[in-house]
Amino acid sequence: MKFGRILRDGLDGPTARLVVVEPEKGRVIDLARAGALHAMGKRHATQAAAVRLAQAQFPGSMAQALGAGDILTHAATEVIQGNYGDDASLPIDSVTWLPASDPPVLRDGLTFVGHIKGWHERMNRAVPDSMLRIPGFTKNSPSTVIGHNATVPWPGYIKSKMDYELELGYVIGREGSSVRPEEAMSYVFGVTLYNDFSGRDLQHDELPIGMGSTKSKDFAHAIGPWITTLDEFEDLDAIPMEVRVNGETWGKGTSGGKLWSIPELVAYVSLGEKIVPGDVIGSGTMGGGSALELGRELSPGDVVELEAGGIGVLRTVMGQPIEGLWWPTPRKPFM
Amino acid sequence: MKFGRILRDGLDGPTARLVVVEPEKGRVIDLARAGALHAMGKRHATQAAAVRLAQAQFPGSMAQALGAGDILTHAATEVIQGNYGDDASLPIDSVTWLPASDPPVLRDGLTFVGHIKGWHERMNRAVPDSMLRIPGFTKNSPSTVIGHNATVPWPGYIKSKMDYELELGYVIGREGSSVRPEEAMSYVFGVTLYNDFSGRDLQHDELPIGMGSTKSKDFAHAIGPWITTLDEFEDLDAIPMEVRVNGETWGKGTSGGKLWSIPELVAYVSLGEKIVPGDVIGSGTMGGGSALELGRELSPGDVVELEAGGIGVLRTVMGQPIEGLWWPTPRKPFM
Repeated sequence: MKFGRILRDGLDGPTARLVVVEPEKGRVIDLARAGALHAMGKRHATQAAAVRLAQAQFPGSMAQALGAGDILTHAATEVIQGNYGDDASLPIDSVTWLPASDPPVLRDGLTFVGHIKGWHERMNRAVPDSMLRIPGFTKNSPSTVIGHNATVPWPGYIKSKMDYELELGYVIGREGSSVRPEEAMSYVFGVTLYNDFSGRDLQHDELPIGMGSTKSKDFAHAIGPWITTLDEFEDLDAIPMEVRVNGETWGKGTSGGKLWSIPELVAYVSLGEKIVPGDVIGSGTMGGGSALELGRELSPGDVVELEAGGIGVLRTVMGQPIEGLWWPTPRKPFM
Repeated sequence: MKFGRILRDGLDGPTARLVVVEPEKGRVIDLARAGALHAMGKRHATQAAAVRLAQAQFPGSMAQALGAGDILTHAATEVIQGNYGDDASLPIDSVTWLPASDPPVLRDGLTFVGHIKGWHERMNRAVPDSMLRIPGFTKNSPSTVIGHNATVPWPGYIKSKMDYELELGYVIGREGSSVRPEEAMSYVFGVTLYNDFSGRDLQHDELPIGMGSTKSKDFAHAIGPWITTLDEFEDLDAIPMEVRVNGETWGKGTSGGKLWSIPELVAYVSLGEKIVPGDVIGSGTMGGGSALELGRELSPGDVVELEAGGIGVLRTVMGQPIEGLWWPTPRKPFM
C-alpha cells in the first residue's frame, strides 16, 4: 500500500489528512472520511462516534498514525476492501501534498560507496578511517520538511553550489531501542524519497567545527511524494533511482552498492536511543546522486525531480534567494 | 515562575503532569488539577467541562503547553493567585521528575571560550577558523532525554572517558523563523540545566566523519530539574554554575565569557528554519564544565549534580554499563 498526507480546507482552517494513494486509479482516498463511512455503513456506528473513531485511527500526522502499529494498515485495508474509499476519494492531480511523514527525528545516513568517494574527491578531503568502523549518520532539523510539489526556500546566505541529494527515506513504523540487524527490518514501515538539499560551500565551512551540518542543510528537507510499504518491494537494494533537473537526467543508478546494509544502518541508529514511529532515516546519497559529483549546481527556478521504482516522483521547484536575513559578525581570534 | 513535569499514576497508567514548582514552599502544584478546581470554584464550570478545559490548558507535554504562547503563564498565574494550588499540591521531595521539556528539536551550542580552548587542547585539535565566523551548534536526539534524579543509561560500547557537560538550556516559548538577535529573547521562555553526557573516546572517532556526534552523545541528555522563566534572572550572563561528582566540586564558574551571545545563538539557530515551543538550545559547556578539561572521567555509580543560581540542582546517577549490545563489524578499505 501507499500512504501519504495532504492538506485540505476544513471548518477550522487548513487540515492535514491521511490518505491511501492509488496512482494506478489516479486517486487518493481520504482515510478519516472513508473510515467514518465504513463505521456507519458496516458497523452501525452513529455518525458522531464514527467520526471520533475514524479520526483517532487515521490522524493527519503520519507519526501519530504509525504510532498505532499494525492497527493502521489493518484498519485501512478493511476500509478499502469494503469499497468505502470510493465515496472519499479525490483526483491525485488535484491535491496539495504534505511531507509524507512529520518525523519526530530526521536522520540521514551515509552508505553509498560511490557517493562517499565522489563527495570526498570534490570536497578535497580524505575518507577518514573511522568511516569504515562506524556507520556515519547525521541528524537534520525536522522543522524544515517540505512535500511533493513544494517550492524550496532558498536562504540568501547560501550564495553558491546549491545542491540536491537523491536518497531513499526509510520510515520507522514501530518503537524500538538497540535492535539488532536481524530484526531491524520489522521496524521499518516503508520507503519514500528524500531530497536533502545542501549548500556545498557553506557545508565546507561548517565541517571543521565538527558538530554536523546546520545552515547548509536545514532550510529544506523534501520527503515524499508518499510512502510505499515494505511488502511492495522485491529487492530494496535494486530499486532504480534517477534525478532530473528541468527534465534532463543528471544522475541515474540503483539503490545497490552500499557500505552498510539497511538493517545495519537502522540497527546502528537505534543503538542506545529510541527510534519512534514516523522517524525518517535517509539512505545517504546514491552514487552520482548529487550535482557536486558532476561539478554542477542548481539555480533559482530549477525543477528537481527524484524518481524511484515502486515509489514515484518527488518534484520540487527551487525558490528565489531570500535576501535581507541577519548573518553573524565574525569574532576575533582568541587563542 | 518555575514550571516542570512529573509522572503520576492515573487510571490509564503513568501520566505526565505539568507543575508549577515552589521550592521555597517545598511543594509542586499539579496545574491540570488546580485549573479544574479554579474553573469550578471561580467560574462556575461543571466538573466535566472544568477537567476538559484544564487538561487542554495544562497538558503533560511541555512542548504542547508552551504552544499556547502567553496563555500558559496567564492561566497558571490566575489559578495560583486564586489560591487554587493549595488543594492540588504535592511535597517537592516525593515526586518523580520527568525531563523539564520534551523538546521537538534538541540543539546544543558551543559558546564558552574557556571550554572551546580546553576541549581542543585535550582532544589535540586546532580551533578551526570557521568557528570564529559561524556559531557552532549540533542537533541531539530528543528520544533520549531524561529528568532530575534519573539513572543515566551507560551503553557498554562507551568503554572509556565518560563525561558530563555543565550547561544551561534555553527553552523556546514561541514559534519563529529567521528572528534577529534584537528580538531573539522574546522567543525564549526560560532557562533550565542541561547535562550533555559524552563518551570522549568514541566522540574522537566520530569527529572525522563530519556528521556530528551520534552514539557518543545520544544515550542520555538530562534536562531539568525545572524551567525558571526569564523574568526571574537579573543577568543571564552572570549565573553562578557548579558541577559536583559524589559531592566534590569538579567545576565552578559563571555563565559569562561567551564567544556568541544568547540572542546571537538563538537567532542563528532560527535562521532559515523554525524554532518551536519546547525546543531546548544548550548554551554549550561552561569553561571547566567537563571532566575532560581536568583529565578525569566518570565511573558507574557516580552521582553528578549540576547547579545554577535561580534554577536549582539537576542530579543524576551513572548507571552500570549495558553489555551484550550489537556493534558493527569494520569494513575493508575501498579507496
